[in-house]
Amino acid sequence: MFGRIALIGFGLIGGSIARAARAQGLAGEIVTTARSPATRARVQELGLVDRVVETNAEAVKDADLVILSIPVGACGPVAEEIAPHLKPGAIVSDVGSVKGMVLRDMSAHLPKTVHFVPAHPVAGTEHSGPDSGFAELFINRWCILTPPPDADPAAVEKLAAFWRALGANVETMAADHHDLVLAVTSHLPHLIAYTIVGTADELEDVTQAEVLKFSAGGFRDFTRIAASDPTMWRDVFLANKDAVLEMLGAFQEDLSKLTRAIRRGDGDALFDHFTRTRAIRRGIVSLGQETADPDFGRKHANLPKPDGK
Amino acid sequence: MFGRIALIGFGLIGGSIARAARAQGLAGEIVTTARSPATRARVQELGLVDRVVETNAEAVKDADLVILSIPVGACGPVAEEIAPHLKPGAIVSDVGSVKGMVLRDMSAHLPKTVHFVPAHPVAGTEHSGPDSGFAELFINRWCILTPPPDADPAAVEKLAAFWRALGANVETMAADHHDLVLAVTSHLPHLIAYTIVGTADELEDVTQAEVLKFSAGGFRDFTRIAASDPTMWRDVFLANKDAVLEMLGAFQEDLSKLTRAIRRGDGDALFDHFTRTRAIRRGIVSLGQETADPDFGRKHANLPKPDGK
Repeated sequence: MFGRIALIGFGLIGGSIARAARAQGLAGEIVTTARSPATRARVQELGLVDRVVETNAEAVKDADLVILSIPVGACGPVAEEIAPHLKPGAIVSDVGSVKGMVLRDMSAHLPKTVHFVPAHPVAGTEHSGPDSGFAELFINRWCILTPPPDADPAAVEKLAAFWRALGANVETMAADHHDLVLAVTSHLPHLIAYTIVGTADELEDVTQAEVLKFSAGGFRDFTRIAASDPTMWRDVFLANKDAVLEMLGAFQEDLSKLTRAIRRGDGDALFDHFTRTRAIRRGIVSLGQETADPDFGRKHANLPKPDGK
Repeated sequence: MFGRIALIGFGLIGGSIARAARAQGLAGEIVTTARSPATRARVQELGLVDRVVETNAEAVKDADLVILSIPVGACGPVAEEIAPHLKPGAIVSDVGSVKGMVLRDMSAHLPKTVHFVPAHPVAGTEHSGPDSGFAELFINRWCILTPPPDADPAAVEKLAAFWRALGANVETMAADHHDLVLAVTSHLPHLIAYTIVGTADELEDVTQAEVLKFSAGGFRDFTRIAASDPTMWRDVFLANKDAVLEMLGAFQEDLSKLTRAIRRGDGDALFDHFTRTRAIRRGIVSLGQETADPDFGRKHANLPKPDGK
């Protein structure tokens, strides 16, 4: 599909793209770089790409597709750095969780001779680093493209075909709308999870040991996304501030409403709310965006035999 | 271990106790009842217990262990109903997520001739009803006993042995402390999840279809516990109001702090917080209370072969 693909950044997303693109035979050659020498050495060791190079400029040389898989705050500076070295006609993309700022920051630097098509695969795990990726990460997940209004339709379609070949469904929308949608389906949940996990860690009357021990009551679910990469998420909240604050306002109103129901002992209001939210998970499961297995399909050990054997 | 066990209520917890107790051979006979005729008929059909009876009074007759697996708001009235029919020397217990109120409500009715030992297995899934239980639910989870100060140590130890035979670890604590601990490890997380799932469902600028489609960004995690049984959770919040409001106050303070950091663009504060929360998940995993698999071990489909076969 592409003669040469350059991957800048080799964490969970970059590493998963590399694995899936190789498995599907989408590139003649995959060239990779990463900021830290340790990551570059590890990628070399893993043997998942054709070449690991030291600089971004070297990586993008003669590449037909360039994908930045780095924190969104770094996208502007890296675009500036690679701009003079890009092959005319190349497709340049990213995987950032915020699109408005990335679109503005990167567009400012990229030459008119390349096709810039921002993208966001809505997929991930709480792990990060070069070992955390896997080829199946994008299967049946959505990848959102937010091309600028003057984007070349053929370039957009080619990038869409690439993501479909990785197993993803592709949708196109305006960058600003993307940022509002993701503020509620991703950024607010992360902020809330980061908050509550911090709260539980700092209580006076309940020890940290108790929080860890009895976390199966629901708390442990929140610790998963609160274990996500700190640099990536710092950048997300800085880059999508307005939309996050707007969603936070809606959340606060609803939390006040439920708090009032608890304070007043209004069982009917609680019951009605809890019944409504139950239906939403069924919708997500029926869309194939969540497992139908109870408890996310977490594994359970077997009971020992009654005779102790 | 017990001649006859009576299970009042046959949802996720009652049904899991029945399956595990039978698998481990802990009872000569298991007698069950449930409030709705449909549940009783289904339990009969499942063939997991020795007898299904119509009334609570009939169920507890001659039982050596009686366990109420019903919403906490129903525990007082059911204790009143069964009190005259209990066998002297029987152990009476429950599985409620709130212990202070259950201890007070049930103690008021139970005769001095029985041993009342409240219990709370910190385990569950988002499913409910007679089909949702499984024998492995309690393995490596904690069951908290909150015996009253004058409880018979032998009865407490016998109930502890029962829970250990179901695979659980057993801890004993005061009812009021239990309610504070669970307010943070279970009740607050549920309240927050119920809130955010409701918020996402009612936005003006983002459609419900978009929320469902792009839920893999983090939101779907919250929908699991927000799909829990509405009656059970209504009762929990009404019964543990003070502790929940206290934890909610701490959460609100922390959320204000993070909100301020976002508003001011204080990346260092965000980064520090997110680094700290990451460590907490590692603690839960190393205690065996959570899977180390990424993404809760959710299954991923395989990529099709590049040649389409």
